[in-house]
Formats: sequence, C-alpha cells, structure tokens
Amino acid sequence: MTEMSTIRDVAKLAQVSVATVSRVLNGNGYVSHNTREKVAAAIKQLNYRPNDVARSLFKGRSKMIALFVPDIMNPFFPELARAVEDMTTQQGFTFVLCNTDDNLNKEMAYLEALKQKSVDGIIIVSSTMTAEYMENFDIPAVALDRIIHTNISSVTVNNREGAKEATQYLKDIGCRRIAHVSGPEHVSNARQRLKGYLDIAQKSEWFNYEYIEQGEYNFEGAKKATQILLTKHPEIDGLFVANDLMAVGAIKAAESLGLSVPDQLSIISFDGIKLGETTSPALTTMAQPIYQIGARAAEMLIKQVEQNEAQTLVEEFSVKLIERDSTRKKGENQ
Amino acid sequence: MTEMSTIRDVAKLAQVSVATVSRVLNGNGYVSHNTREKVAAAIKQLNYRPNDVARSLFKGRSKMIALFVPDIMNPFFPELARAVEDMTTQQGFTFVLCNTDDNLNKEMAYLEALKQKSVDGIIIVSSTMTAEYMENFDIPAVALDRIIHTNISSVTVNNREGAKEATQYLKDIGCRRIAHVSGPEHVSNARQRLKGYLDIAQKSEWFNYEYIEQGEYNFEGAKKATQILLTKHPEIDGLFVANDLMAVGAIKAAESLGLSVPDQLSIISFDGIKLGETTSPALTTMAQPIYQIGARAAEMLIKQVEQNEAQTLVEEFSVKLIERDSTRKKGENQ
Repeated sequence: MTEMSTIRDVAKLAQVSVATVSRVLNGNGYVSHNTREKVAAAIKQLNYRPNDVARSLFKGRSKMIALFVPDIMNPFFPELARAVEDMTTQQGFTFVLCNTDDNLNKEMAYLEALKQKSVDGIIIVSSTMTAEYMENFDIPAVALDRIIHTNISSVTVNNREGAKEATQYLKDIGCRRIAHVSGPEHVSNARQRLKGYLDIAQKSEWFNYEYIEQGEYNFEGAKKATQILLTKHPEIDGLFVANDLMAVGAIKAAESLGLSVPDQLSIISFDGIKLGETTSPALTTMAQPIYQIGARAAEMLIKQVEQNEAQTLVEEFSVKLIERDSTRKKGENQ
Repeated sequence: MTEMSTIRDVAKLAQVSVATVSRVLNGNGYVSHNTREKVAAAIKQLNYRPNDVARSLFKGRSKMIALFVPDIMNPFFPELARAVEDMTTQQGFTFVLCNTDDNLNKEMAYLEALKQKSVDGIIIVSSTMTAEYMENFDIPAVALDRIIHTNISSVTVNNREGAKEATQYLKDIGCRRIAHVSGPEHVSNARQRLKGYLDIAQKSEWFNYEYIEQGEYNFEGAKKATQILLTKHPEIDGLFVANDLMAVGAIKAAESLGLSVPDQLSIISFDGIKLGETTSPALTTMAQPIYQIGARAAEMLIKQVEQNEAQTLVEEFSVKLIERDSTRKKGENQ
C-alpha cells in the first residue's frame, strides 16, 4: 500500500482550500458542481480515504451491529436508532437498522441473513422473539425497550411506575373520570403501562372497564379508540394514552368531536419523542431517556462483542414527567 | 491472525473432494446430510471463510440491499424506507437502512463496510456522493430523491414545477406577500424548490430577497427562519416551506408570535408525509408519491442486481397538491 494521502494533498491537487475539501466531505455549505468534481477526482487519484474508512479498512474486516425495531414509522424508534447509531459508530462499528413489523418470520429471516453476513451483535426491540430462537443464532444480543428473557441482557424503563404517575397526575390536576388508550396486549411494555393505570384507576369509585380501549400503538388506532371512549362516555375528562404517537391521534379525535384539549379533556402520554413538542397543544408526557437507553444498550452490546462477556445485565431507567399544554394546570377552573 | 484456510484444507479435513465442498458452499447438486455435516464441521474447525460465504451457502436468501438516508429523524425517510423495504423483502432480499447525516465520510465508510459484507445493491439519498466515488465501489446503485449524476439511475420528483405550483397556489388564494423557507443550499432538491418559488415570486412587484430564509430542512431551523421572516416582515401573509417537517416549525413560529394560521398566514409545504395530517392545522402540501418512488427505486435496483442490467434510467414523478387547513380557502375574506 502506498503512503496515506492527507486532506492537504487532496486540496493541493484539486487547487482548492482544505476547508473546501472538508465541505465536500462533510456535506455542509454550498460547493459548486465543478469544484465538487475536482475534489472527487483528486480524492480518487490520490486514493485518499477519510478517517472512518481508514479505520474500518485497517481492522481488516468491518464490524457490524444491527438494531431491530418493530415500527420504523413510530418516531420513537428513529430517535432510539439515532442513539444506538451514535454509540456504535463512535466505537468503530457499522450500524444498520432493520424494521421487523414485530413479525417473528421477519425477525428470523433477518437473524439468518445477518448471521450469514457475519454481523457481530444485535440490539432487538421485540415482542415476538423468544430466548429459544435467539439461542439458535448464537449472536451477542441485547434487548431494548422490551424484555425478551431473563437470560438476555436488557435495557428498559419503569413502565408501570411511569404509568401510575401519569394517571395520578391526571387525578391531581382535577380530572374526575380517567380513561386509558392502551397499546397492544402482546407488547410487554403496553401491559405494564395498563397495569400502572389500573393501579390508580381501580382504587377509584368511578372505575369502569369500559374506560379502556386498545389503540394499536399507532395514530389511526388511537384516533378510533378515543372516538369510541369519548362518544360512549362523554363524562371522561382525562386520558392516559400509552404512547405519544397515539396521543396525537387522541387529540385529533377530540378535535373531531368538538372537544377542546386541555379545557374539556386533559391528555397525558408516554415516551417523550420530539413530535410531542410540535403538536398543538404540545404533549404532557412521561418522557423516557430515549437517547440514554439507546446508547446504553449499544454500550452493553459492544462490551459483549469485544470482551466476550457473558454476564447478563438487566437495567431499568426511570421516566420523567414533562408538563406541556395537553393537560390543564393544577387548580385551574374546569 | 492465523493463516487463512483454503477450500482444499476443508476438503482434506472432511475427507471429501473439493467439488463436494463447493457443492455444499454453492448449494447446488445433491449432497447427503452426513457429508454436509462433515463439511460444515471442517469449515467451523478451520474457521474457513469464503469471500461471499453468505451468498454461496444460502443462495438466494442472503441477498442484501441497503438504503442510505441523510436524516432518519425526518419522517419522510422512514416512509420512503417502508416502501423500499416492502419491495425488496417481497423479492427475497434482506433490507437494511443506513443513516448517513449527509456526510460523505459516513457514506464512504458504509459503502466500504457493506461491500465487505457483499451487499448486492444500494439505494442512495445523498447530496454529497458523486459518481466518481460511486465508481470506486462498483456496486449496483440507484439514486433516490436526489440525482447524483446522469450516469446513475435515479428516481426523483418534479421539484421545481411543484414549488412553482405551490407558490402560485398562495397567489391564487389571495396572498399578497409570499416568503420562502428553503432547504440547505447543497441539497439539489432544495435548490430546485427555491428556483420554483423564484419562478413565480420574481415576477411579482413585491418580490424581495429578504423573503427567503434557510431552514436546514429541520424543525428548529425552520422555526427560527420563520421567526426572522415574520418579525422583519410582518406584511408576509403566505409562506412556501420547502418540506413538511419545516412547516411544523413554521406553524410553531407563527403561534409563538401570536399569528393565526391560516387566517393571518397561509402555509403550504412539500412532501406529503403522514405527519402533515396530524398537525393542527393539518398541512396543505405538494405531496410526493412517496411509496411509489421508493418502490420504483427498489424495483430498478433489483433489476440491475439480478439481470446485470447496465442501462441508466432517469425517472421523474409528479407531485400533487393536497389542500388541508394551513392555507385559507380561495375567496375567503382576509
């Protein structure tokens, strides 16, 4: 191999500044088409390879980590992926994202294909995968967001506690009839959030199982569920929705029925995705430390991969109330 | 690292012919279960790794296609990914998603790593990649959303025409001062959308270059850009925002200044992502056929991969106006 070229060599050959080469490489700032081509030609001629590439080349073979998510259209997962990506890239791994639709067939096909591609480790958000299937594949793995088995390391949050706190919050601001739009039954964190709601609701004299509707963890499902709840039970004045994406659907449902949020209906949800800041009204929510849990899962996995560490770690992070505009303020007139 | 084993070493240890090992690796011709197990054991013991171990062991099942996107946090890209995934999965390919931050360093590292993993083809949304870089890697590729070079097949939309139509729409509903929140200069479709705006705006007597602010194609950038526009130029009553994600920021900016959308400010944007249905008010937008372009790019790539088809195809789809609530109705009082 010839001596490594530097960014200076590229700039010199292309007769542009180092800053311009850097702009081309990093894709920030405008660079004319002509200049871009000149820089590209110089890079090719010198066989210049920026640092990241050099690093993966020198390691001989490229290490790869994959993240399995059940629904890439729920912004929670791109946010989680962002964290996993940052940590894995920083540690010299290639990061790829796989969307599984929470479908075991797809998950197994991915495991099979990635094992063939010598993937080094997998972070998996799944409600369908079991420890038995995972064993077949013998690839280092960490479960994220949803526990798979006590044998597999996991990073989750205190879903039940968070849901209790959310429901209690609605009581504290003066809601008298509190309903719940839940996630799918087969998803463990959805069951935990339902339990947290029940911990508070079942102790209340107004409690009624008809105050629970399943919203599929998506926008449309939650919109329908909320319309059913509010039509059948116009007395409902508080709603704990099991994730932020569904809360957007709940707001739309209230709007369609001419109900004002938060004046007539307070809505609190769960997750703390950025989308919740952008809705009108902005969402009050139990925020997960999304970035932190994603980065932590990646860190755990990398340790497993690099140190062949077999120890099973189970970590649970805490959620935190963020008060915004979808719930009325304490002590406000109703 | 120990010396690399060869196919001959495997054959010798397994006490079979090289042709038999090759049959096992390539999955063609009959090999008894016993022999297959012996070969597998020898491969494992010698840690033998054929270059494309995956492809040869499980022909047809380990083919992989990757999609490069610049910003996984913009919901446009998960929607696009959904389409590419559906088409590639349906055709028996494994689909992985890579987030590049529109950073050439990351793009090159991904290309390098995926080439090592014998990726079969790549669909790439990029503003930094050039044809010259791509040539180094010699992997079938299709450009999506943004043209890379006339040598590389591409699927895009008529950005300039769509932007013209959006700006004209604001004029038609009675807006008298129309501003533009643009995307980054280095992104070709952002430049096209700016040109489309200028096609209409520059012909108007009120036109002013101060009516253009750059919003970085993200929520925060657009919020700031809109605040600047509306503060400096309170006469603005129409806003063409270069993508939907930024339009959400623009609505928030208007809200923060006490301006009502659409009564005092009409906002039209571009993309047609699902998020636009969920905002309050819901977005009027020039909708791309997102699913269609993603699926079409995948289809093109698969043809290239499977038929070694070298023909360069350049396809441009049309965007379509969707009228919702962020623009006032034609003929309404102002």
